[in-house]
Amino acid sequence: MSPVRNTRVLFNAYAEGYPIPGKTLVVDHSETIDLETTPLQSGEVLVKTVALSADPYMRGRMSEPGKTTSGPAFELGKPLSNLIIVKVLRSENSSYKPGAYLHGVGDFAEYQVLSNLSDWQPLPETPVAPWSAYLGVLGMPAQTAYYGWKEVANPKKGETVYISTAAGAVGSFVVQLAKMEGLKVIGSAGTDEKVQWLREIGADVAFNYKTTNIEDVLKEHGPIDIYWDNAGGKTLDAALANMNTFGRVIKIGSISSYNSKPDPIYNTETILWKRITIRGIIVVDHHVQYLEEFFKIFSPKVAKGEIKYVEHVVKSLEDAPQLFLDQHTGKNTGKAVIVLE
Amino acid sequence: MSPVRNTRVLFNAYAEGYPIPGKTLVVDHSETIDLETTPLQSGEVLVKTVALSADPYMRGRMSEPGKTTSGPAFELGKPLSNLIIVKVLRSENSSYKPGAYLHGVGDFAEYQVLSNLSDWQPLPETPVAPWSAYLGVLGMPAQTAYYGWKEVANPKKGETVYISTAAGAVGSFVVQLAKMEGLKVIGSAGTDEKVQWLREIGADVAFNYKTTNIEDVLKEHGPIDIYWDNAGGKTLDAALANMNTFGRVIKIGSISSYNSKPDPIYNTETILWKRITIRGIIVVDHHVQYLEEFFKIFSPKVAKGEIKYVEHVVKSLEDAPQLFLDQHTGKNTGKAVIVLE
Repeated sequence: MSPVRNTRVLFNAYAEGYPIPGKTLVVDHSETIDLETTPLQSGEVLVKTVALSADPYMRGRMSEPGKTTSGPAFELGKPLSNLIIVKVLRSENSSYKPGAYLHGVGDFAEYQVLSNLSDWQPLPETPVAPWSAYLGVLGMPAQTAYYGWKEVANPKKGETVYISTAAGAVGSFVVQLAKMEGLKVIGSAGTDEKVQWLREIGADVAFNYKTTNIEDVLKEHGPIDIYWDNAGGKTLDAALANMNTFGRVIKIGSISSYNSKPDPIYNTETILWKRITIRGIIVVDHHVQYLEEFFKIFSPKVAKGEIKYVEHVVKSLEDAPQLFLDQHTGKNTGKAVIVLE
Repeated sequence: MSPVRNTRVLFNAYAEGYPIPGKTLVVDHSETIDLETTPLQSGEVLVKTVALSADPYMRGRMSEPGKTTSGPAFELGKPLSNLIIVKVLRSENSSYKPGAYLHGVGDFAEYQVLSNLSDWQPLPETPVAPWSAYLGVLGMPAQTAYYGWKEVANPKKGETVYISTAAGAVGSFVVQLAKMEGLKVIGSAGTDEKVQWLREIGADVAFNYKTTNIEDVLKEHGPIDIYWDNAGGKTLDAALANMNTFGRVIKIGSISSYNSKPDPIYNTETILWKRITIRGIIVVDHHVQYLEEFFKIFSPKVAKGEIKYVEHVVKSLEDAPQLFLDQHTGKNTGKAVIVLE
């Protein structure tokens, strides 16, 4: 068999504002790979990529070294990397036979050789949901939602939670978690379509923060006991001004400032007077404590359709650069996934 | 016996900036009281004030109603109130005989009748320290220090703590708590005399924030695992920029903004990337859990001289208005107490 083309998404230039397709990220077709003769060392597997997760936090790693957030800078000229699902084509590893599916952090490339499999997890041979669900509704965003909820939210039935970027992959899951536990949910998003989606998944109060004043809504429907912060900046400031005594703020993102200087926060005094707790949560810190419990509770719920979710799926690596830009300009709803199989 | 003069400190006008002696607070001599014939209802006691605590937070209650912090506005024309120690002169309450000493929230007046004693605590007849120590080194500031330390700091030997306004009543106690537990202590204060005091009580790094750049010090001696925030504003912002991963911020004051608009905070993204916890602590929330333990541990330490402390003592209610101004302009070191006996 002759070599086949191995399409890759390369990190081409440090981003200053938005990641620009063709500049920050380029699709590269120059590499080929021979799937039958590429040599494998003991322990290695040759894999074909099945699905790739495209997440907002990755923008933080596209900055210059020293200015990055959420991990080291991606290496210029090399493929992006993130959570992906792969199928084993050839194996020199006794744990994984050809045909097995794995889940871990790998390159944005159609094919690759994996040398160290210690951080890769096997996926079930007969999954209860499409592969994309394992990167989406059951993936890192939902895990983030669950871990933050368990670690910081301390929710009580009848309390009020405000969720910013509530139509996103993390936010949508939090909305549904909060409704399952009997809370009043206020959610905001940046388009009327997303606001409609928030109502469909159960938000009691849903509004478009681009056309409605956040403070007015929180004054009317608050005070808020729990603020789920994926926005930062002015949204965080408005939430702090409308917290209830002993309120909790879970900070899992700062999407308002990934591409610009952060907006200042003025309402820090309220942290004291209202005895507020603010805590940042990153998913990788809590897998050991919560991942097994998470899959046990939510895999069946997804299988039964009890969790609603929206994927933004593209079918080719060609579309990946635009996908990253769209998720920073508010054009995506739900988890962005590239599905190749 | 003819009536005696009952000097009081009255709240005379809402403060906008600093509390101005003679304007915000006035000393009033117009009232008299007959200590022998003043009628007492069943359950009431007539008391003489022995010592009064003057605390920075009280400024927050000198603002217009609706603009206050840390409690409701003081009532115009009425005496200030705060933690005081009193001696019972006459009693219609079977629990407290004449000669007993009590500790609770009362008026800034030489004499008063107390009707409801449910929130008053008896003090020992033979105290191990001067009365001022019960309002000072063993009083609310030290209790605040201990409760915040227990609730949020989660200190580990070898970690680094930065304490702002470290020469104050709360800060001085935290410096010594941290050194007892084997931490590296960075402390800042606003005069060279206070910085010298910080060295005397064990701070490893002590600096004058008015003449030394906070960020430079924290960059050199950090990152910091614990930030004890009594300053807010730019100091909080500088600390956030220099936190270690999984850092903890205990917010117990915002002295930089009691008399002006708060400075904005820019470094909120770091709360996420460094997984920082920020929590506001107010002393009254935690008495039930910690007060008994606090007295058990620290009364003997104070008695043995193992805790160093500075009081700023004045001996007359005449000096109270200036005392409040001085503590907001940085002229006081240590706990401000008015001792009348």
